[in-house]
Amino acid sequence: MELELIAWLKKQLPADPRIPLSIGDDAALVNIDVQKSCVVTTDMLMDGVDFILAEHDPQRIGRKALAVNLSDLAAMGANPVAAFVSFALPQQNGGQLGRELLAGMLPLAAEFNCSLAGGDTNSWRESLVISVTAIGEVAVDRAWRRSTAKPGDFLIATGEFGGSILGKHFDFVPRVREALWLAEQARITAAIDVSDGLSLDLWRLTEASGCGAELLVDAVPLAAAAEALAAKDGITAREHALTDGEDFELLLAIAATDWPLLHQAWLASPFAATPLTKIGQFTPEPGLWTISKHGRQPLIPRGYLHRGDTARGDSA
Amino acid sequence: MELELIAWLKKQLPADPRIPLSIGDDAALVNIDVQKSCVVTTDMLMDGVDFILAEHDPQRIGRKALAVNLSDLAAMGANPVAAFVSFALPQQNGGQLGRELLAGMLPLAAEFNCSLAGGDTNSWRESLVISVTAIGEVAVDRAWRRSTAKPGDFLIATGEFGGSILGKHFDFVPRVREALWLAEQARITAAIDVSDGLSLDLWRLTEASGCGAELLVDAVPLAAAAEALAAKDGITAREHALTDGEDFELLLAIAATDWPLLHQAWLASPFAATPLTKIGQFTPEPGLWTISKHGRQPLIPRGYLHRGDTARGDSA
Repeated sequence: MELELIAWLKKQLPADPRIPLSIGDDAALVNIDVQKSCVVTTDMLMDGVDFILAEHDPQRIGRKALAVNLSDLAAMGANPVAAFVSFALPQQNGGQLGRELLAGMLPLAAEFNCSLAGGDTNSWRESLVISVTAIGEVAVDRAWRRSTAKPGDFLIATGEFGGSILGKHFDFVPRVREALWLAEQARITAAIDVSDGLSLDLWRLTEASGCGAELLVDAVPLAAAAEALAAKDGITAREHALTDGEDFELLLAIAATDWPLLHQAWLASPFAATPLTKIGQFTPEPGLWTISKHGRQPLIPRGYLHRGDTARGDSA
Repeated sequence: MELELIAWLKKQLPADPRIPLSIGDDAALVNIDVQKSCVVTTDMLMDGVDFILAEHDPQRIGRKALAVNLSDLAAMGANPVAAFVSFALPQQNGGQLGRELLAGMLPLAAEFNCSLAGGDTNSWRESLVISVTAIGEVAVDRAWRRSTAKPGDFLIATGEFGGSILGKHFDFVPRVREALWLAEQARITAAIDVSDGLSLDLWRLTEASGCGAELLVDAVPLAAAAEALAAKDGITAREHALTDGEDFELLLAIAATDWPLLHQAWLASPFAATPLTKIGQFTPEPGLWTISKHGRQPLIPRGYLHRGDTARGDSA
């Protein structure tokens, strides 16, 4: 089964000069531009935790397994190069399942010029596990970190928040192109992707940077899905936006003085249809606060931690 | 649980100038020497397939998960740099288990100067899955491949074969140091590590190279464990040596004229206690044969494929 799956995959893959040795040897060779640093991230997704195989289309599951890794590369300001994909496939129809998972990854890999360069295919008597490691490149000393936001920096967000469970958690487009454009345009002082919830990942960003943040809570763009969920479950759309996981948007820190020009450029860019919004400001004192018509209130970071008590944020 | 485990791991890890950004961000940064290519391999190990958690010491399991990847780097002639470790931990005592698995990896990582630079820790209701991706470096255009053995080349093997199930499949030392020494001393034309059985991995090497091989079957060094197994199960030690998996020795191709000097140098090297043995020769016609007092007989490649119908060989 493994051999057939690998033979099939090799036929789907275009040649890539950055990958002089790909699937089929003991290891792959990946050429990183000599001017750049190698960026590595990895995520494991499990049936019943990150997706439900009995309910979800395997192609969407496969796509998501790659997309979450590309989102981590975006959060570093890095350009994808290669991905390595391992499966623990359930024995029944495992070969067919593996092919569908890969079929879901291939268009996304092509879209972001990320070669599927290797992996390890296995089967066993238990449920599906997918592990993806993605490798990217970023100019030396230019990788975006979590730990370098400065008090006074503005807090900027791509896109809209909340309700991703209605579909976006599978079908989101990782913000790789936006990140590369932003890295060209401005000096981003820190970044994180929102995998576990806006308030929780903002807290991680401030913790790592040794500062705090005030969130302009009414400025946070609400996804239509957040409103749709709110109509059903009575939790406000804003609460969804602050605590739902898997938005896979970027939270960025930039010097306040850089924001007006960057925002103007964004509105004239190919990305203008996506909001790029100032949603707050970093503070010297540690902690999170909301700023609204109700004044300044402490914000307790909450997010999507129920998946077996773990968070996806710390993938490296 | 994840946070505690990560905090504990960070404390165990020495600083590494090759890893300017390690655990705790969206991704890690890995500096590959500008004169070198980045080598990437990945292996997934599952409870009930590659180990039995109820029977085996978690530290040995963790060590093995890293060691199989280092063996793949050795088979490329590559120097380890970093490893990324993901777990799907069973919920009961998952934190303790994760710590023991890592405790088993850390000494091996230190021994081979391979930084544990990231990963993804999860828990779920099913059995333990470990996925490791290892990154190494090798001089540009000097990586050992499977596909470049030439008819007439000698077939060389490190170490002894057979019976690894009695312990070596956990406790083997990946042949990284030997590989780096060999790469310095001679031009190795092709290589593979024996993960699934001498005859099966030799077949893979010949298939990839478009040639065949004659195996000097009486020259293959037999492990004491192969003899011990033979005494119990009635299969000959030689049969064990040819078909048991997980020896994690290297099969190498070198030009016949290079062998005498290399062998001499080996016997004067720090590795002399380990056999480095000529066990055959590559042939123009595809296929495998044994050469012995019984003459030239076809050899049917067999190996360790029962683990859920998959092989570990093709890890990239």
